[in-house]
Amino acid sequence: MAGQIAARLADLALTLPSPMAPMANYVPFVQSGALLIVSGQVPAVDGRITVTGKLGAGVSVEQGQAAARQCLLNVLAQAQAACGGDLDRIARVLRLGGFIAATADFAQHALVMNGASDLAVALFGDAGRHARSTIGVASLPGDAAVEVEAMFELR
Amino acid sequence: MAGQIAARLADLALTLPSPMAPMANYVPFVQSGALLIVSGQVPAVDGRITVTGKLGAGVSVEQGQAAARQCLLNVLAQAQAACGGDLDRIARVLRLGGFIAATADFAQHALVMNGASDLAVALFGDAGRHARSTIGVASLPGDAAVEVEAMFELR
Amino acid sequence: MAGQIAARLADLALTLPSPMAPMANYVPFVQSGALLIVSGQVPAVDGRITVTGKLGAGVSVEQGQAAARQCLLNVLAQAQAACGGDLDRIARVLRLGGFIAATADFAQHALVMNGASDLAVALFGDAGRHARSTIGVASLPGDAAVEVEAMFELR
Repeated sequence: MAGQIAARLADLALTLPSPMAPMANYVPFVQSGALLIVSGQVPAVDGRITVTGKLGAGVSVEQGQAAARQCLLNVLAQAQAACGGDLDRIARVLRLGGFIAATADFAQHALVMNGASDLAVALFGDAGRHARSTIGVASLPGDAAVEVEAMFELR
Repeated sequence: MAGQIAARLADLALTLPSPMAPMANYVPFVQSGALLIVSGQVPAVDGRITVTGKLGAGVSVEQGQAAARQCLLNVLAQAQAACGGDLDRIARVLRLGGFIAATADFAQHALVMNGASDLAVALFGDAGRHARSTIGVASLPGDAAVEVEAMFELR
Repeated sequence: MAGQIAARLADLALTLPSPMAPMANYVPFVQSGALLIVSGQVPAVDGRITVTGKLGAGVSVEQGQAAARQCLLNVLAQAQAACGGDLDRIARVLRLGGFIAATADFAQHALVMNGASDLAVALFGDAGRHARSTIGVASLPGDAAVEVEAMFELR
């Protein structure tokens, strides 16, 4: 692991976690042609979800952003495993799906999801600029505050 | 219909329903290259949704699992139609999206969605191991308790 | 802009808006091979969201349909930009994802989303018949009542 993206992670003093095992009977990623699909990731560290609860009811925008950022780190840990350790094989971040556990009157989902999007652009530059859909959901597995799924194009 | 997957369905004493007509102005599946996209399916049998309501408010995890399983059977009925009757043309289950109608404090979405995922693996083996995103939603069309969408790779 | 789809837009007395800038650090569309992915669009006109609130709590089905239709116009504005101005490069509307901000007891999501689906078919004919998943969400960015994302196949 000594590629460009690995170097940018080091520059940002970030370390990818060990890829988390799925919570259930599925796999963390599949590849079809050049398309890499990564399963929805929650903000877990060492198997424990670090930000639980709802935006708009106790979880602040800043906490939500940190959660979204951790979700993306977990997505990248899975992508790295899919790429045999070499994140430079990612040609493009195609799409991020952001699921924000939120109350009915919460409206700042976009700001929360920027925690993931900003990190994608910081790491991958223009190749990190992705399509995105962000929605507020009723609840998430394990009471996670945020879940992020991803599609990448590999080279 | 006498392929391997058809035989496993028979082994499990399962019958695929007639593919359900969409609730509205869209189609149940589209194909683009090797990619087959199946529209979100609710747990309907003979045109009637069998499990309605919310997880965390009256619908048990077991009922939710049965609903998720029925959703996947409906997905497979659509996939079978897309494949001209031959489910052996499915090279891989790429991704399942699981939408669980749930209360804000429900947290066992992953267990519910296993009703679909376990069946995919039981039928397709390793080719049934899929990427997955599962979220808890406020409500679903027709008050369905679960909705499942899918992407397949065809051969 | 003088193609077939542009002509049908004119026939329907519809004008595509200027493509809206993303609310945050991402891009409105990405292309990978023949696949065009458009980010979730809210029912904004001139940068202001025109239909806010929840289906089942003050927003009528008719208002929701108008919102879904506006979301699709905004999706098409992005697709037009992706196609260098020529919507005739769209070979197929592959999939629409419909996110309806709704109460727990709302059940007519499919009717609401028809506001988008019916317009797709009116504009693109058979090539506009798409796979679709529609769900009811807790809340959406900027309190939008509806959000629509899309995948197209380009020629």
